[in-house]
Amino acid sequence: MSDTATITSPKTSLQVSFKEIPAITATATLLIKCRDQAGIVQAVSEFIHRYGGNIITLDQYSTAHEGGQYFMRLEFALAGLSEIIDNFEASFAHTVAKRHNMEWRLHDNGIKTKVGILVSKFDHALLDLLWRHQRGLLDCQITSVVSNHEDLRQSVENFGIAFHHVPVTKDNKVEAEEQIHDLMAGNDLLVLARYMQILSSDFVKRWPMQIINIHHSFLPAFVGADPYRQAYDKGVKLIGATAHYVTTELDQGPIIEQDVHRVTHRQGVTELRAIGRDIERNVLARAVNWHVQNRVIVAGNKTVVFN
Amino acid sequence: MSDTATITSPKTSLQVSFKEIPAITATATLLIKCRDQAGIVQAVSEFIHRYGGNIITLDQYSTAHEGGQYFMRLEFALAGLSEIIDNFEASFAHTVAKRHNMEWRLHDNGIKTKVGILVSKFDHALLDLLWRHQRGLLDCQITSVVSNHEDLRQSVENFGIAFHHVPVTKDNKVEAEEQIHDLMAGNDLLVLARYMQILSSDFVKRWPMQIINIHHSFLPAFVGADPYRQAYDKGVKLIGATAHYVTTELDQGPIIEQDVHRVTHRQGVTELRAIGRDIERNVLARAVNWHVQNRVIVAGNKTVVFN
Amino acid sequence: MSDTATITSPKTSLQVSFKEIPAITATATLLIKCRDQAGIVQAVSEFIHRYGGNIITLDQYSTAHEGGQYFMRLEFALAGLSEIIDNFEASFAHTVAKRHNMEWRLHDNGIKTKVGILVSKFDHALLDLLWRHQRGLLDCQITSVVSNHEDLRQSVENFGIAFHHVPVTKDNKVEAEEQIHDLMAGNDLLVLARYMQILSSDFVKRWPMQIINIHHSFLPAFVGADPYRQAYDKGVKLIGATAHYVTTELDQGPIIEQDVHRVTHRQGVTELRAIGRDIERNVLARAVNWHVQNRVIVAGNKTVVFN
Amino acid sequence: MSDTATITSPKTSLQVSFKEIPAITATATLLIKCRDQAGIVQAVSEFIHRYGGNIITLDQYSTAHEGGQYFMRLEFALAGLSEIIDNFEASFAHTVAKRHNMEWRLHDNGIKTKVGILVSKFDHALLDLLWRHQRGLLDCQITSVVSNHEDLRQSVENFGIAFHHVPVTKDNKVEAEEQIHDLMAGNDLLVLARYMQILSSDFVKRWPMQIINIHHSFLPAFVGADPYRQAYDKGVKLIGATAHYVTTELDQGPIIEQDVHRVTHRQGVTELRAIGRDIERNVLARAVNWHVQNRVIVAGNKTVVFN
Repeated sequence: MSDTATITSPKTSLQVSFKEIPAITATATLLIKCRDQAGIVQAVSEFIHRYGGNIITLDQYSTAHEGGQYFMRLEFALAGLSEIIDNFEASFAHTVAKRHNMEWRLHDNGIKTKVGILVSKFDHALLDLLWRHQRGLLDCQITSVVSNHEDLRQSVENFGIAFHHVPVTKDNKVEAEEQIHDLMAGNDLLVLARYMQILSSDFVKRWPMQIINIHHSFLPAFVGADPYRQAYDKGVKLIGATAHYVTTELDQGPIIEQDVHRVTHRQGVTELRAIGRDIERNVLARAVNWHVQNRVIVAGNKTVVFN
Repeated sequence: MSDTATITSPKTSLQVSFKEIPAITATATLLIKCRDQAGIVQAVSEFIHRYGGNIITLDQYSTAHEGGQYFMRLEFALAGLSEIIDNFEASFAHTVAKRHNMEWRLHDNGIKTKVGILVSKFDHALLDLLWRHQRGLLDCQITSVVSNHEDLRQSVENFGIAFHHVPVTKDNKVEAEEQIHDLMAGNDLLVLARYMQILSSDFVKRWPMQIINIHHSFLPAFVGADPYRQAYDKGVKLIGATAHYVTTELDQGPIIEQDVHRVTHRQGVTELRAIGRDIERNVLARAVNWHVQNRVIVAGNKTVVFN
Repeated sequence: MSDTATITSPKTSLQVSFKEIPAITATATLLIKCRDQAGIVQAVSEFIHRYGGNIITLDQYSTAHEGGQYFMRLEFALAGLSEIIDNFEASFAHTVAKRHNMEWRLHDNGIKTKVGILVSKFDHALLDLLWRHQRGLLDCQITSVVSNHEDLRQSVENFGIAFHHVPVTKDNKVEAEEQIHDLMAGNDLLVLARYMQILSSDFVKRWPMQIINIHHSFLPAFVGADPYRQAYDKGVKLIGATAHYVTTELDQGPIIEQDVHRVTHRQGVTELRAIGRDIERNVLARAVNWHVQNRVIVAGNKTVVFN
Repeated sequence: MSDTATITSPKTSLQVSFKEIPAITATATLLIKCRDQAGIVQAVSEFIHRYGGNIITLDQYSTAHEGGQYFMRLEFALAGLSEIIDNFEASFAHTVAKRHNMEWRLHDNGIKTKVGILVSKFDHALLDLLWRHQRGLLDCQITSVVSNHEDLRQSVENFGIAFHHVPVTKDNKVEAEEQIHDLMAGNDLLVLARYMQILSSDFVKRWPMQIINIHHSFLPAFVGADPYRQAYDKGVKLIGATAHYVTTELDQGPIIEQDVHRVTHRQGVTELRAIGRDIERNVLARAVNWHVQNRVIVAGNKTVVFN
């Protein structure tokens, strides 16, 4: 109500990225995992410097010094990146990465991560992702939505996103998953925005650490069915939600993000679900954004999140 | 992902109200303000009991005992309420209310509060209200939306809500406000969901404590223009939003609800605005819901919120 | 640094109670549990009114209307309370309580609840309770501290509180518990401020819903030994603590209060423990204060907390 | 109650530092401030590598790329650090620092920062610091406490810390500050743990960005006297506390840390003060710990906190 004069269209202001780097300069993100050892920062930064790159952010973490696991995330700006990226990668592989025995990945930030969404009937997590995507608040390209119900077709198509209905029954589960797999081919990430079917191990194995689920409880409390009912029966004073990678073990994949909200004895199960929706949509949106910004590294059954 | 069997349609489950009272029994909410004195609870509960009502919730607060201000909010169930409400009110006025010199108001909970929304170009607070309204999570009827820009017409009409465009310039401000007043006539509450025009004192006086604004700062810090810029410049470690009633004094009306989110030096002004949007929409939704549930009583320049 | 002029001694300012009721008027707290039914508020308030009492706060809650469980907490002021309390109680028992088949309890707020503390070697939860007690921030009288180690004797005696050392081994557990029971006789509440011995069922049964424990995790996640290690291994993004009543089932008693704090992959087990200490001491202090203010009612395996 | 077997003495467990680095290897912290420019990370890491050092953590931040201000904090392990530190510093000054026109500072983490505390009569913030210090949870050496009142002498001396009483009146303010300055000479940091005297500009200038104050409000709201009274009068729904560096402008120095707690209309001024105490002591402890760990860099009127 009070900033009449200074308001510009949100679309305009959102095109300025947070770091306010001139859009002309291309940037890339480098992720590294190796044994902790002396000289890594020196070797990597020297390599980038030789190409004329400028390090924008550098995060590192190691589980223990002298022999622990080491993780690095590094963003750098480099004019003309797209023309030299192949050379850069080949050269990095044969020198720094080889010498330090690194697992690594380079991502050209000019290329958007492709994301497909699976959903059932609850729309809160889905709509929040679509709305953030439309406003430029998710650093990815949402390609399509698959659902085992028709209900949300209109809501999805309103955003100009393709909607596919793939019914799932006990009898057609294998075929349905095959169909979903084909529809989702080409995506880098699948998001289960309250998808109420358990994916088979075979499906999950084809998308390793590429499926994010939002679980409607503060894991590891209340695994399994109807967690808000469980939370109500237990009388907890906080309820929560958990975004995690999907593995073949149900509700046990590496946790990316969690949050909670205070409740009292007065809230019934229905009200817990309503409060839970607000937590779920925020937690899922944060987890997806961190993933597509290459901020999440899986380390065993846990995650390192550089945010 | 894990509660396949137990899920019912959200529409169905939402029709069960939080308190799980059988829908057949009508309920009403009684708000009372008077001087603190002995015997108020006794007098009110005895009166309701005589009509066969059953008190569901009772909240009271007094600023000081023996002479302070006293506030009560009471919900009760009463079969056949709508037929006897006139008699109930008249009788209450002549007996209990008169004897204790009360200001009071009775609301039949079967009648939805009518709410109109004013907005400019930012859609986050608006869409959140419309989505909650559609899902039955706001206890009111949203009647229409007025904006000084055309931009959000489609988004609003997608929800089946009427949209009116009332352009405002320096020259037509008086006429524009007259037009808004007419369009909004019949509503019980106006919500400024990031409406970027300052309403005149004349307008505000016609809607006393009936306009709720969402201010994008943790008031009283950062009154005036561009609070996220101010917060950035000051280097605060938490940013917030404030829902308050609009009075003729800009940004100074009674505060209904506030919340904050942690930030660091790394977030620029643009990112503060993005974080702020999530706070704003949640804070505004809570404030509107409390208002339409008759949970907010204004006491001087402050609010008593029975939630 | 900035309120030189207005500062009074904390001791002085603390003697003013929060509600700023003149200390002359005695107050009492009435707790009621019965089947939900019409007319309870009316009957109770009418009874108090007849004695000349003035209701200060009234909280109620029912699990479901028409046949659910009903809970009420009511504070009232009544001049000369101590002289007439016996008559008041007898009369209430024979009239209102009998008619509505109530379980109930009346507490004269002029009489402090007596609290004994059990502790092992960790001092953070203990010292916080003793400090709050000394400053008048806990509404109870801490009578003595029992520990299975000598380590904290000096810290406790510095506060002018009696310290008893009762060593516990596998062989003397029965005798030790008997000794503790005798030392603690006369208290209304036992607080386990990180007491690292599991109390026997026999002991627990002698103090039903009169023992509060602080568990160093967000229950029901991470029951059993070393929860911070479990939380670290699981990679959760929030850690917590839980204050609960002790029952014969380990870590399963009704939860009174919980809280959490955000952590990241960077925090090792030792740092989680340090963060956890701050949560534990605050959660325990809140739970103890609510209990001694008669704000907690146990309902099955859950609590109703009127705070 | 549940981890009997695995508990070790807290003293023992605390001697293991969070990073679990073998205590044998010395570490140092390097802080750098300069104009943002390409090659800084490369130059610094290459320099450390040449000395055989291993970078443990590296944080950087720049206000804008290509010409903005650049900040770095870097911890590295280096065997035999103390013997070569002079040579390391001289060499760094003449090469990397000179070439990039850096302001910089190297801190041998084996040397504890010396901290003096000023206090008046409120003991909560003071005692919390002393308790954390005693338990090894503050990375510094608290040398002594100065107060303008005698009240807290015993509490301080119980911790084995020297206590000095320096009365301050209107007439002796200059002499008193001179005396405080002399008593505090040799410290690296002064902490105002609710010291209710305004320090003169002359005093403050002698301790530039070396004095941390805890202000009992969520600055910049409620500057000046009695902020809890102001917060109560304004009816805010959250109250807070702010730790900041003291500058010659009252309550306006760079903010290091803030936190808030939710309140309602029910809490009076006295209760707000009680809640505020818990916030104050936690916020101050965090700010002091970050300062003594060299995690705070002042940038204009704001802070960069690498935590």
